[in-house]
Amino acid sequence: MDRTERVELATICLVYQDTKILMQNRTKSDWKGYALPGGHIEPGESVVESVIREVKEETGLKIENPVLCGIKQFPIKNGRYMIFLFKTNEFSGTLVSSEEGEMSWVERNDIPKLDTVADFAELLQVMEDDSLSEFYYRVQDGDWNLELH
Amino acid sequence: MDRTERVELATICLVYQDTKILMQNRTKSDWKGYALPGGHIEPGESVVESVIREVKEETGLKIENPVLCGIKQFPIKNGRYMIFLFKTNEFSGTLVSSEEGEMSWVERNDIPKLDTVADFAELLQVMEDDSLSEFYYRVQDGDWNLELH
Repeated sequence: MDRTERVELATICLVYQDTKILMQNRTKSDWKGYALPGGHIEPGESVVESVIREVKEETGLKIENPVLCGIKQFPIKNGRYMIFLFKTNEFSGTLVSSEEGEMSWVERNDIPKLDTVADFAELLQVMEDDSLSEFYYRVQDGDWNLELH
Repeated sequence: MDRTERVELATICLVYQDTKILMQNRTKSDWKGYALPGGHIEPGESVVESVIREVKEETGLKIENPVLCGIKQFPIKNGRYMIFLFKTNEFSGTLVSSEEGEMSWVERNDIPKLDTVADFAELLQVMEDDSLSEFYYRVQDGDWNLELH
C-alpha cells in the first residue's frame, strides 16, 4: 500500500547576529517582499545540506550548525508544501546578493517598517519560541486559517 | 513545473519523565524491537496534530506541547521517507498498550540491555542534542550510511 503524498520540500534560514537578522528583498512575483533566504530541497538531498547550499547561493555566506526550529506547511493542488525552518548565528564569508533578491542585515526593531511577505511576524514567532513547532495553514471552505502549534 | 517528490510522512515521539522514557516493544515484522511510539501522518493532517493522535492511539496518553527536535530520513523506491521527531514531558491519562506493541517506562540506563530497533542510540542522540537536527541515511552504491547533521 502506497502511503506517500506529493510534497514540495524547501528550507528557509534565520541567520542572526546580535540584534540583526539577515533578510532578502524578494524579487519573485509569487511571494514578494522582505523574507528569509532559502529554497527547494533537491531530490536525494538531505534537509541540512540543502539549507546550507541555499543560504550560500543566495547570500554568499557559509552557515554552520543550522538548528531545526520548526516546520511551515500549506496545502497545494496535489498534496502539501513543507518548509523546514532553521536558524543559526554561525557563519563565515562575505555577504552578496543573488537574482532572487537583495540581501541586507535588518535591525529587529525595523522589521515592522518593512514590506515583509505575508504572516512574517508569526513565522518568526514559531522559529524563536521553543514551545512552538509548526506554522500551519488549514484550508476550510476555501478560507486559509493560520494556526501556530 | 512540478517540484514535488513522493514522500511518506510519519512522526515519532520521545515521551519522558525524570530518568525514564516511554518505549514500545514493536510487534510489526518490518521494524521489530523496542522503539518510540508514532505513526503515519494522514493526508491534510498537521504534523503536530498527527503526533498527538498517534501517541494517544498507541499509549493512551494525551501529550501536550510536543517540541520538534529533529528529522529522520531515508530513501524509498519512489522518493523519500521523512519522520518528524518530537519530544515532550507533558502528558495526562493512563498508560495502555495497542496491537502495535506493549508500552513500558524504561530507565535510560536499561536501554543498552534491550533489543532496540536499529540505530536507536543515534536516533536518541539527534533528538536530545540541540546541535543536531537530522538523522539521515545516505545510500551510495547500495550501502546505507548513517549521517548525523
